[in-house]
Amino acid sequence: MISGEVRELDNLVSRTPEDMAEEGVTVRVRHEVMDVDPAAKTVSVKNLETGETFTEPYDALVLATGASASKPPLPGVDLAGVHVLRNLEDGAAVLKTIRGGAKEAVIIGGSYIGLELAEALVKARLKVRVVEQAPVLLPTFGPSAADTALDVLKENGVEAHLDAEVTALEGEGRVQKVVTSAGEFPADLVMIAVGAKPNSALAEGLGLGLGPSGTVMTDEQLRTSLADVYAVGDLTATHHVVSGKPVWIPLGDTANKQGRVLGKILGGGDDRFRGIAGTAVTKVFDRAFATTGLTLEAAKDAGFDAESKEIEATDHAGYYPDHRDLSVTLVWENLSGRLLGAQLVGYGDAVKRVDVISALLFQRGTLQDLADLDLAYAPPFSNAWDPLLVAANVALGR
Amino acid sequence: MISGEVRELDNLVSRTPEDMAEEGVTVRVRHEVMDVDPAAKTVSVKNLETGETFTEPYDALVLATGASASKPPLPGVDLAGVHVLRNLEDGAAVLKTIRGGAKEAVIIGGSYIGLELAEALVKARLKVRVVEQAPVLLPTFGPSAADTALDVLKENGVEAHLDAEVTALEGEGRVQKVVTSAGEFPADLVMIAVGAKPNSALAEGLGLGLGPSGTVMTDEQLRTSLADVYAVGDLTATHHVVSGKPVWIPLGDTANKQGRVLGKILGGGDDRFRGIAGTAVTKVFDRAFATTGLTLEAAKDAGFDAESKEIEATDHAGYYPDHRDLSVTLVWENLSGRLLGAQLVGYGDAVKRVDVISALLFQRGTLQDLADLDLAYAPPFSNAWDPLLVAANVALGR
Repeated sequence: MISGEVRELDNLVSRTPEDMAEEGVTVRVRHEVMDVDPAAKTVSVKNLETGETFTEPYDALVLATGASASKPPLPGVDLAGVHVLRNLEDGAAVLKTIRGGAKEAVIIGGSYIGLELAEALVKARLKVRVVEQAPVLLPTFGPSAADTALDVLKENGVEAHLDAEVTALEGEGRVQKVVTSAGEFPADLVMIAVGAKPNSALAEGLGLGLGPSGTVMTDEQLRTSLADVYAVGDLTATHHVVSGKPVWIPLGDTANKQGRVLGKILGGGDDRFRGIAGTAVTKVFDRAFATTGLTLEAAKDAGFDAESKEIEATDHAGYYPDHRDLSVTLVWENLSGRLLGAQLVGYGDAVKRVDVISALLFQRGTLQDLADLDLAYAPPFSNAWDPLLVAANVALGR
Repeated sequence: MISGEVRELDNLVSRTPEDMAEEGVTVRVRHEVMDVDPAAKTVSVKNLETGETFTEPYDALVLATGASASKPPLPGVDLAGVHVLRNLEDGAAVLKTIRGGAKEAVIIGGSYIGLELAEALVKARLKVRVVEQAPVLLPTFGPSAADTALDVLKENGVEAHLDAEVTALEGEGRVQKVVTSAGEFPADLVMIAVGAKPNSALAEGLGLGLGPSGTVMTDEQLRTSLADVYAVGDLTATHHVVSGKPVWIPLGDTANKQGRVLGKILGGGDDRFRGIAGTAVTKVFDRAFATTGLTLEAAKDAGFDAESKEIEATDHAGYYPDHRDLSVTLVWENLSGRLLGAQLVGYGDAVKRVDVISALLFQRGTLQDLADLDLAYAPPFSNAWDPLLVAANVALGR
């Protein structure tokens, strides 16, 4: 929407309250649950339009309060022209600033939301700078992605400042300047893209068991520590199939899947949410980055005796006119050869190959299991040795 | 090369005898092994250029004689302008016929070589007809591929004649006409694309155990029934990980993998070739078709109590400008839910998702295992529910 590739905000709405009503589900927007009485099994609700308060009973209570964009308490953070991007209203506000004539943008944060925004704002014809506190971009996508992303930003006229701490946003009424440890940058649009925090106030009030980053902990059937209270989506921690530990990687596909699992359970069926592999993909200008499982650094942090290797290949046959570079990094456990993760850097759908590794992570597959696979080959789609197989062979040292 | 997308035949050569010599491997082209003496462990070799014959000793003998294009004994099959397409010489001969002014082509055979040829010949500006004996195109890619392929041919001005038997090729010196049960078609280029047959004469002479279609049978370490005689590539039958039976699906990636496994073994290492899932992919004009494991029909033929379901989705987010249709058919075993196969119809790399199913087939995964996967999601790459997950949910009946 911000880049101009999607024409209407409404195109981004999957379902309206009216759509839900047609399915027999009452959705009350602009209503806030002020309190939960788990003994009486009721919630007290405030109609934010009228101020009226009322009580609703429940058999099962599902907390799906999501997460909010983090907004660090910087001086000037509430100036006009300073935005986050989490929901449609945020998007509409950013568009208003752009249409109001913004020319120079500073994006605070170099993870994928920050970099996707960099692309969108360049397409919207702004001068763009990215300021990142860490020494690398896209940390969960591995070192090769970090280097490539830096090149891609440069190729597209985006200034990136790493190891740079923002100390203040300055301006008269509207933001005009971003003050950082790497210098001061003019800005009439500032995007804060430094991650999210779970909306856990209600859960905390209920005394629910909390997980990493203040998330709500659930079991495989999405039950919280309180009887008949469930939680799903960005609010919750999930089981990581590689590390075996609870993690918070709030993504839309995970939220969707949890909702479906819980819907089945509440409808009287049986199902389980079996966790995540931390699979993610992002497009930054013409380049694509994908990750699943753990990077080498994350694997070592998680206590694995891990090793990794990167190979460079092409996504389609090397003699085929449309082939492009594709690099694959595999991360595995020494001795056992168990796959722990993979990161891909390439173009377009070619990096969706990451899903093959994700499938093996769920099955606790090894490098040998990967090397054995029969992957689809024809010159417009792959080399005879798919890059994943090349990576497995190289990792196996043969 | 035939379509004009690859400029030089040499671009299609992976390695020359000279490249191999640099690696310390002597390659003798235009030499034929006339006889093998397994007791003495020698082969007698004829130099086809000089006529000279000599004997070479071996410790290990590897049969890698490949396969040849089938050429049914039709009247007129040896007329000028009638070609098969298996090796570079065949390709050069086809190009010569085209450059000689051929205008109308008939392709005998509607499997993927036939249909890829249809695209190439249309791009080379010939009028193209495809004649197929069976009632469907692309049988190993499932019924949806068959229907779509028929539409794609029509969209691109290619006439397809199904259930049509070729009875003769006619012409004065050069082919001019193809006579079929569906009518007579003018043709100054005829492509015979009705499959291949293994080059098993030497193996038969040695009395080796033969598999389906006259292939050589090997074990996981590529040993034949004769001591110190191995076989790899298109000559051999392989273990199908779904049916558990030996099959002959001669493809370049399988041959490559077998060569590498055997190389390691002969070099004193340990390795195994664990079989194939029958994974394949093909591009016909702008459409892409992929298959792995068994179609519903093949699963029933193999004795499975099988079921299948097809879903229609889009490869990228439905609101994203470049999204295109993608259909996924899953085939599974009733009761156990074990995945038996999948067929995808779509565009470009999107159908490489088939590799995720191939990975699960090697792991004997179930529909539930597929539904549990954490697949990469971002709007330029997928919907929040990847089409594979939609297919799993629908197959699970939820």
